[in-house]
Amino acid sequence: MNFQLLDTLRQIKPVVLNISNFVTVQDVANGLSALGASPIMSEESAETEDIVQISQAIQLNFGAFTTEQVAHIKKTGQLGNQYQLPVVVDPVAVSSINYRHQIIPQLLQEFHADIIRGNTSEIATLGGFSWQAKGIDSADGKGDRRFIAMQTAQKYHCIIIMSGATDIITNGTAVTQITNGTPLLQVHVGSGDLLSSISAAFAAVSPHNLYQAAQMAALVVAVSGELAAQQQSTLGPGTFTAALLDELANINIQDLQQTAHYQTQEENNAATN
Amino acid sequence: MNFQLLDTLRQIKPVVLNISNFVTVQDVANGLSALGASPIMSEESAETEDIVQISQAIQLNFGAFTTEQVAHIKKTGQLGNQYQLPVVVDPVAVSSINYRHQIIPQLLQEFHADIIRGNTSEIATLGGFSWQAKGIDSADGKGDRRFIAMQTAQKYHCIIIMSGATDIITNGTAVTQITNGTPLLQVHVGSGDLLSSISAAFAAVSPHNLYQAAQMAALVVAVSGELAAQQQSTLGPGTFTAALLDELANINIQDLQQTAHYQTQEENNAATN
Amino acid sequence: MNFQLLDTLRQIKPVVLNISNFVTVQDVANGLSALGASPIMSEESAETEDIVQISQAIQLNFGAFTTEQVAHIKKTGQLGNQYQLPVVVDPVAVSSINYRHQIIPQLLQEFHADIIRGNTSEIATLGGFSWQAKGIDSADGKGDRRFIAMQTAQKYHCIIIMSGATDIITNGTAVTQITNGTPLLQVHVGSGDLLSSISAAFAAVSPHNLYQAAQMAALVVAVSGELAAQQQSTLGPGTFTAALLDELANINIQDLQQTAHYQTQEENNAATN
Repeated sequence: MNFQLLDTLRQIKPVVLNISNFVTVQDVANGLSALGASPIMSEESAETEDIVQISQAIQLNFGAFTTEQVAHIKKTGQLGNQYQLPVVVDPVAVSSINYRHQIIPQLLQEFHADIIRGNTSEIATLGGFSWQAKGIDSADGKGDRRFIAMQTAQKYHCIIIMSGATDIITNGTAVTQITNGTPLLQVHVGSGDLLSSISAAFAAVSPHNLYQAAQMAALVVAVSGELAAQQQSTLGPGTFTAALLDELANINIQDLQQTAHYQTQEENNAATN
Repeated sequence: MNFQLLDTLRQIKPVVLNISNFVTVQDVANGLSALGASPIMSEESAETEDIVQISQAIQLNFGAFTTEQVAHIKKTGQLGNQYQLPVVVDPVAVSSINYRHQIIPQLLQEFHADIIRGNTSEIATLGGFSWQAKGIDSADGKGDRRFIAMQTAQKYHCIIIMSGATDIITNGTAVTQITNGTPLLQVHVGSGDLLSSISAAFAAVSPHNLYQAAQMAALVVAVSGELAAQQQSTLGPGTFTAALLDELANINIQDLQQTAHYQTQEENNAATN
Repeated sequence: MNFQLLDTLRQIKPVVLNISNFVTVQDVANGLSALGASPIMSEESAETEDIVQISQAIQLNFGAFTTEQVAHIKKTGQLGNQYQLPVVVDPVAVSSINYRHQIIPQLLQEFHADIIRGNTSEIATLGGFSWQAKGIDSADGKGDRRFIAMQTAQKYHCIIIMSGATDIITNGTAVTQITNGTPLLQVHVGSGDLLSSISAAFAAVSPHNLYQAAQMAALVVAVSGELAAQQQSTLGPGTFTAALLDELANINIQDLQQTAHYQTQEENNAATN
């Protein structure tokens, strides 16, 4: 785990282009800004290439999924590949809405996603697992989720961040499991979208080691959430959201060192487990 | 008043499909999630039927009112009727913008709204009252508002929630008046939209008694607001918003029993008053 | 500086029509409402004239910049001119995105902007300065920024509000510099958009002296931000946002008198400096 990336991010202040989810766009912009990155949001294809040229990473959130937005996502993803920027994808609701289940796997053939961030059922669906039958959502913390994440990473040749009470990050062979966090991250609607965008911000400052970028993104959000939830005994989801943004701004390497709970498995071990 | 619906909602965690107001969508999603429901927002007609099939109730907010969105609202409302889901409508600005005054009554002929939630002037406009001439907005708490709400409920064969310092809920004959609340609910822009969505969430868990669902939705929002406003002497609209979300998550039946101020009139009495 | 405008605004509660930035629309609506104005947002051209007729001022934010939105901005600006409403423009990213650099100066030929609010690089770009070469962003607080603001005001025959650690307000000859504020205003993504909308609200209640309106808008936001940042020692950008809305609701003329730090230069002096 390369904690130093946090300071690097704040020095570089990377510009992150977001095709954003209209439900959570304000929180995501403020979260990126709080952490120290520079968010740009756009809905106009005609300016996409201009914005890609001033960006260091791209986050494509599939919560915005009109026909025009799908075309915009495709164009932005392809430009991201062309300009060799890290591209992060958040396949919102691919597991629960049939329409997206049809479209999203096709879309992921049109450009390469470097990091895919989703919950267990979204990642399982992309990986081709019949997760609903097996009730994978309830298998939290067991071996199944890790296997599914690794297989999906291998299928898409990318880094997978599978969010949950335990976050699983994998490049298809090595695996990191992070157990920091708080249930309030699940109640706050924008937490997953925020993690996807923060993954892009870390990818911007670690473009040649996206696995480390994904590790740090998940850890920073999980630890920030955990510290935010500790601030008040009567905390609810409203004050938590404000406290989470505060923590994203104030968290430092020492906080991470003192609070982080995770385990990593190297490639050889992981491959045989 | 069926307080038990609060616990039922949290057990069932109903999926509520929202055609949402772009101004307040984030707050509404977080409010539904804080209370214990599962919000889904979408702007793409092609996926509407898929989403309707996994939803338990629908909320159509007319704050989003482009030509495409009006078509989307119509389709979603009709699918809601077809799949026998409760449909809640929020006729934003029908009273103040001529264009909406023309379109919205037509739109309400295209599908059946089970619950309509608006402020006094919006409900009066739908009911065909020349409210501006009579200055109904200032008649708060007097008999006029109750009469208008009842007449509008009869006209549309639906439940009316007329928001204000006193909330009026009626099925056209029975009437409930709730006097809980705080002026900060009016300052916070998303309060009305949130109440509309929470009405859909309660309708999902009380589909055969929508009057009880509407009562509980209005009471839960009013009491949550009142309790949130009591937390700090220097509270303003920013900290209030966070405190309101906290209360929506933390409120329980005992809180409602201790704090609720309302009166109900049964059908026979109401019909003659 | 006409502090009395704050009380006037709260008495009149002006209706401000916003073509808003989808990233920050919720914060802007809540900020206008907290201060005491009445926000209206719309994305449908067919209702624009109806809304203009019930509005007292218009704010056009170029953060929403799809082809349809540009057409909507143009129509709304022209209607604002026709109905003699103050029109405030926020030229988001005109300095950093080539596409907008091409479109925005043309758009500003199609209608008259009474007030333009931007950061240093945005205003410099509109004024035709090759600011990037000169690194104007780092010239904060020096004479250059004031000169650029005055030249741009003269070029567009409008009031300029150039935001920064020092806000510069000018009508092309007279200049006001405000040094209140807090760095947290820069971290909070919606601060600039909010200032633009609040400028429209003050313009609505001071239509014949837009320079005074712009002064007061910048002062109220800067002082509210400064007071919000003083409330807690551990304040971060999340709790700051809530505290800022609280201050916008609670700030009064006495607060402004006690906290305001600004200097004004009259026309004769300014013209020769």
